[in-house]
Amino acid sequence: MSACPAATATPVSAADGPLPVLGCDVRVPLVTGGEVPYAALDYAASAPALQRVWDDVAAYAPYYGSVHRGAGHLSQLSTDLFETSRADVARFLGCRPGDQVVFTRSTTDSLNLLAAVLPADCRVFVFETEHHAALLPWRGAQVTCLDAPCSPEHAVEILERALADRAPYGPALVCVTGASNVTGELWPVRELAAAAHAHGARIVLDAAQLAPHHPVDIAELDVDWAAFSGHKLYAPFGAGVLAGRADWLRDAEPYLAGGGASRAVTRRPDGALDVEWHTTAARHEAGSPNVIGAYALASACRALTEAGFEALVAREQRLLAAVRAGLAEVPEVGVLSLFGADAPRVGVLSFVVEGWDSAEFAAALSAEYGIGVRDGLFCAHPLVRTLLGGDPGECGGGTAAVRVSFGAGTPDEHIERFLRAVRELAPRQGRGELRGQPPTACS
Amino acid sequence: MSACPAATATPVSAADGPLPVLGCDVRVPLVTGGEVPYAALDYAASAPALQRVWDDVAAYAPYYGSVHRGAGHLSQLSTDLFETSRADVARFLGCRPGDQVVFTRSTTDSLNLLAAVLPADCRVFVFETEHHAALLPWRGAQVTCLDAPCSPEHAVEILERALADRAPYGPALVCVTGASNVTGELWPVRELAAAAHAHGARIVLDAAQLAPHHPVDIAELDVDWAAFSGHKLYAPFGAGVLAGRADWLRDAEPYLAGGGASRAVTRRPDGALDVEWHTTAARHEAGSPNVIGAYALASACRALTEAGFEALVAREQRLLAAVRAGLAEVPEVGVLSLFGADAPRVGVLSFVVEGWDSAEFAAALSAEYGIGVRDGLFCAHPLVRTLLGGDPGECGGGTAAVRVSFGAGTPDEHIERFLRAVRELAPRQGRGELRGQPPTACS
Repeated sequence: MSACPAATATPVSAADGPLPVLGCDVRVPLVTGGEVPYAALDYAASAPALQRVWDDVAAYAPYYGSVHRGAGHLSQLSTDLFETSRADVARFLGCRPGDQVVFTRSTTDSLNLLAAVLPADCRVFVFETEHHAALLPWRGAQVTCLDAPCSPEHAVEILERALADRAPYGPALVCVTGASNVTGELWPVRELAAAAHAHGARIVLDAAQLAPHHPVDIAELDVDWAAFSGHKLYAPFGAGVLAGRADWLRDAEPYLAGGGASRAVTRRPDGALDVEWHTTAARHEAGSPNVIGAYALASACRALTEAGFEALVAREQRLLAAVRAGLAEVPEVGVLSLFGADAPRVGVLSFVVEGWDSAEFAAALSAEYGIGVRDGLFCAHPLVRTLLGGDPGECGGGTAAVRVSFGAGTPDEHIERFLRAVRELAPRQGRGELRGQPPTACS
Repeated sequence: MSACPAATATPVSAADGPLPVLGCDVRVPLVTGGEVPYAALDYAASAPALQRVWDDVAAYAPYYGSVHRGAGHLSQLSTDLFETSRADVARFLGCRPGDQVVFTRSTTDSLNLLAAVLPADCRVFVFETEHHAALLPWRGAQVTCLDAPCSPEHAVEILERALADRAPYGPALVCVTGASNVTGELWPVRELAAAAHAHGARIVLDAAQLAPHHPVDIAELDVDWAAFSGHKLYAPFGAGVLAGRADWLRDAEPYLAGGGASRAVTRRPDGALDVEWHTTAARHEAGSPNVIGAYALASACRALTEAGFEALVAREQRLLAAVRAGLAEVPEVGVLSLFGADAPRVGVLSFVVEGWDSAEFAAALSAEYGIGVRDGLFCAHPLVRTLLGGDPGECGGGTAAVRVSFGAGTPDEHIERFLRAVRELAPRQGRGELRGQPPTACS
């Protein structure tokens, strides 16, 4: 057969610069005239594809074939590639023996899948600070929405109290983010997992914002499941993952009903259908899998591992420190924080600017500097409202915030341009000081 | 901004040959020594990407950004591209004003979505001849599984009788394939739709096997919904579609709960969450959409339209006639058919070979000729069992069949090689005649 489809290998190294990503040479026009390279600072929504991921996809695409289905060479190669991708993701996440890795379409899909396999009478505990993907899927269950904590320790206390107080003492699931999609702050996942288990509950880690920035080890964190998305992990090809304990997944009805999930379908004499479902991950993957998406996601996992996550983290922390120091020098800017200035965090940060509507500030960053950020409530409405305080408009930034986020593909220049832009824009509408710092949840 | 990402345009023309697809130059080894170009004859499982689709994806990939979320240029460009893709798909399917186009991950996902939005007490009517994706999703509903018909007219009669006899006379949905994934035979969709509507039922068209081979016009067929998959339509990037009437979609709970589907989330004074959901297609598309998948699918729709569907159909019918004539000359081969030799069909055909196990026959096609087909029951177990007759092994091919399928990217040489292979392989195990032609459903 022709060369292995994954033969290419763009050099990856975080030692002295960003990892190569697609789009780094895209130029966008400015309202002030001319063009600049686009600065993608919205990684928390979707990150650009790693060049390495694209190269792998491009090398594989001519070899694409149906998986688990065909007798031809390319079907067999594709099946191998798909199942190897599953194993690569399991390795990336530090899965335990017996854990299942289910390919979904996103973190949202993964958590909806988990919601669909909860045992009867399972109660769900979730902080109000979560992304909607983690807040909303638990529609069949009784959900306890926990107040925003003001420190990691406080989070553990709140959870322990809620779990201990639950009545009746039945099955329970805790859903918690690894890194906030609003503040970038890290949550005490290991401690929350210990608390959950001590109180007879299970825990799922929403790693959508953590996995692209920080190693995730399911076994070491002792979480029961983890979920994340390819499009935030430099592999925007429509695949996500739910990985973890097999039992609830195996015992529940299939998430999607159809081919691939069904092992045998027969008609009974009375005309009704008898279905025997698979008990492996395929049980929840009905339909032809998104092979390219799964392969891209696994390619990103491999690329981050090979680049050296320690070096990537160190570089991102350097950029983050620069952003935080730079914003601190702009008096009109108030940075949103739940856990305070010293909390460990990833390269995701939201802020308001005195006198500016956040949407207008984000639009100005785009139009005048070619910088892409996000404004709004970031699909975490209760959290952002809590961080902004009660009354709309009270904290300078009004009812929404601006979020800047970055990662392994971000060059220093994007950060420098962003800080220059904030310095130049902020005073234009502001009055040199923030009327009130955004309150923290506990203020 | 740099050139439009969709600037490339591989010439497409079906006038005198196949459309360019990826993988046409992939070579595979033969057990007899040497290599041959891979002949992908498993289009009914997954078709190769059109070169045009790949070119569009490659041109867009550097411009990828979050949709409906970001303030930057690439987010806005990506949002435009995503919504334009939705409009392109609507045009491809002949949607009516007010119809919704929901991006899903596959036909299976689309039909599971429709199953999730059925009104209370809705009964579902489905022929046993359907793919599992159409047979199995209706888990909350009372399902009437209809016997295999022996002609298109018989199908309409069976359906009319079942709908008329239903008690109580409440809401009902009929799910029917446009073209069988086993026999390739066309179903009388327009007539079934008329019957459904005459009896106060709605109808969804499983167009997974029809749309790649034949124009589909929702308005003209008067079906309420249609579903199809990108991976069978030369766009294997993880996207599918459910398109059709908005009311049931708008009135039901969101398919996935999360960001994107939720317009506003607030905490009530008692701590519980209030959610306001979108009423557009976004209601059922929670999470970051698979923009590349949707764009690829729309690109394929445009490419087929521009190539001229009439010419594509004519060319495929020529190949199909050659396959049918060639197989008819091999006495060991029995072709599976529900509606008989004269039934109109697309380039999908299943058969058994006297004396051969179907899996071994498919393996020999791969190993000795570099041809990829599929063997088995094709995720349509009841249909294939009905076609093969009751007793395993009775019809030469045993308990499974071999399926050959092709389409817009298939060169004549693949068909010629396949027929030569069947002629050479069949007599090796066979005895020169089929012990019994596979019975039709009505025999």
